[in-house]
Amino acid sequence: LHYSIAVIPGDGIGPEVMDEGLKVLKAIEESHGGVRFANDVMDWNCNYYLKHGKMMPDNGLDTLKDYDLILLGAVGAPGVPDHISVWELILPIRRAFQQYVNLRPVKLLKGLESPLRYKNHADLDFVVVRENTEGEYSNMGGRMHQGTPYELAVQNNVFTRYGTERILKYAYSLAEKRPKKRLTAATKSNGINHSMPFWDEIVKEVNQEHPGITTNLYHIDALAAYFITRPEEFDVVVASNLFGDILTDLGAAIVGGLGLAPSANINPERKFPSMFEPIHGSAPDIAGKGIANPIAQIWSLSMMMDHLDLPEISSVIMNAIEQVLVDGKVLTPDLGGNATTRELGDEIVRQIYQA
Amino acid sequence: LHYSIAVIPGDGIGPEVMDEGLKVLKAIEESHGGVRFANDVMDWNCNYYLKHGKMMPDNGLDTLKDYDLILLGAVGAPGVPDHISVWELILPIRRAFQQYVNLRPVKLLKGLESPLRYKNHADLDFVVVRENTEGEYSNMGGRMHQGTPYELAVQNNVFTRYGTERILKYAYSLAEKRPKKRLTAATKSNGINHSMPFWDEIVKEVNQEHPGITTNLYHIDALAAYFITRPEEFDVVVASNLFGDILTDLGAAIVGGLGLAPSANINPERKFPSMFEPIHGSAPDIAGKGIANPIAQIWSLSMMMDHLDLPEISSVIMNAIEQVLVDGKVLTPDLGGNATTRELGDEIVRQIYQA
Ligand SMILES: CC(C)[C@H](C(=O)O)[C@@H](O)C(=O)O
Ligand SMILES: CC(C)[C@H](C(=O)O)[C@@H](O)C(=O)O
Repeated sequence: LHYSIAVIPGDGIGPEVMDEGLKVLKAIEESHGGVRFANDVMDWNCNYYLKHGKMMPDNGLDTLKDYDLILLGAVGAPGVPDHISVWELILPIRRAFQQYVNLRPVKLLKGLESPLRYKNHADLDFVVVRENTEGEYSNMGGRMHQGTPYELAVQNNVFTRYGTERILKYAYSLAEKRPKKRLTAATKSNGINHSMPFWDEIVKEVNQEHPGITTNLYHIDALAAYFITRPEEFDVVVASNLFGDILTDLGAAIVGGLGLAPSANINPERKFPSMFEPIHGSAPDIAGKGIANPIAQIWSLSMMMDHLDLPEISSVIMNAIEQVLVDGKVLTPDLGGNATTRELGDEIVRQIYQA
Repeated sequence: LHYSIAVIPGDGIGPEVMDEGLKVLKAIEESHGGVRFANDVMDWNCNYYLKHGKMMPDNGLDTLKDYDLILLGAVGAPGVPDHISVWELILPIRRAFQQYVNLRPVKLLKGLESPLRYKNHADLDFVVVRENTEGEYSNMGGRMHQGTPYELAVQNNVFTRYGTERILKYAYSLAEKRPKKRLTAATKSNGINHSMPFWDEIVKEVNQEHPGITTNLYHIDALAAYFITRPEEFDVVVASNLFGDILTDLGAAIVGGLGLAPSANINPERKFPSMFEPIHGSAPDIAGKGIANPIAQIWSLSMMMDHLDLPEISSVIMNAIEQVLVDGKVLTPDLGGNATTRELGDEIVRQIYQA
């Protein structure tokens, strides 16, 4: 089993957590004979932008296309506007490769405590399926009357039947495989009166094909509140691009923080490479200190193994992470410890070799 | 001091909590000689819609214009699509009367516990200023290619300099009056690349006029997470229509639930009536049972008194609410008790007479 991976460490803490991710891949190769990863590291980041005026070479997407997988750290630096680093690197990859599913588990790992007073491990175990190619992140819109009191900016939300159906079908088929057989769809059709009623209609249509799945449509405001008050209700939560983005950061917060939460950008048809990344950003405030939590990046590798249909290896990685958390001796500052990124990474690697 | 109030109880639990609100107003009149409220009750709700094909009479807004204040319960019923009940009643009122400020306190009342394990009263005391007339709730957009696989819906986010400046100016002047002198603005300029960078620019411009205010621009995803992990940081949070909607339901969840959270729709120039309402909806699931929590509605009256520059009366109401919560004997089911809506309302009224 040979896989080629395009590795994009990115900016800030991206390269720091990526180092630990690459060590984990090596440990997997050495301890699980037969699987091999060929990694090529791309220096596409904000430094590259400052030098070349673009985030990646003109043939960047073409280059990536030939890899089996893409592994991303985090992108963004103080000198470069966010909408450039994101719109010239992350979003083009998600779109060009039809990674229309953004899968984000919300799961309280063993050894961790939720900040929610009355919620424990059994209450916090669901997955968010986020639409990843259209909706509120449309790139369509502009400004008028600049420099006058009448200036205005318009941004279009664009929801296609094509894009909406495929994400809902994926979410429903995932719900079929889960124990609770429950799907919750985020909407805001009371306030947003064209795109969201359209979304609701398609939810109801796709629901028809899955009569065994209990479906709830909740407005995003209420749903965000329910993440706090009744997370135990959720199994598969499906949401548009923006709503999924908000819900998954919130999801990360209720299971211990952004340093832990992984993200898989999946092309389910496997026509194009899928991309794995932490949810967190490049965190300029702690970059260079060597104290970033590498778990989100390493967990994203476990999602990668699931995508490759290597569930045993996926479990080895998750067990290693959870064992380190249960031991509680080698933790980064965000988890209340004083270990470095590298020390936490080494400890996870040690657990992998022991397994 | 005579004030006229247009009372719209609405649907579901709306009329139930409104009854308690009106009892509180009466108690204020009787115990605080001099202030008088003339209430006219409007039957504009989903029943009205089912009978007349509209949520209010054609001259509804004209009728309301002559009142000093509007008091709303909640609107929405299973038989009527949400986007009708909302777009034909609540949103036209907010817009026609230039109630461009939607003020929503996030404050943990005495006697209550936060669901956040490590947060207490000192950590949870800020206010969200939500833009209330434009942005993501634009009513602009539509559909194409209905009934084909190529169907799509577009919805415009419309941000004007006029609308954005006025809400930010209000938020900054509020921050000037608050102890922490801190303003947090919600954005998503990394993903939403026209309207949100425009919003950010205006935040920075208005910030220039308020050098004493510490300003943070946080992306909405991170900000939602910070409501959980570091709410103590916040003082004034300012957000667009949609982001403010999401943040305030989340805010309600971290200070004890939607049954408590009030909302003031303010026209700061006082050219038009302002409107006071609970954040919660009509809650069809518990309507008719007489167990809805009336505190959000009653708290909204305290905000109304602040708006009328009657801070002593505002405090009397808040103290009465908090006293009942501290006593903890007469609580509705959402607060862990088994009192009815009426019993809790009576108890608050009793405290007002005692004050
Ligand atoms: C009913 C709905 C449109 C409304 C809103 O989103 O404004 C409500 O959620 C609120 O917060 O007042
Ligand atoms: C960087 C940003 C545009 C991105 C997003 O919102 O998609 C990030 O927050 C994420 O969730 O992957």
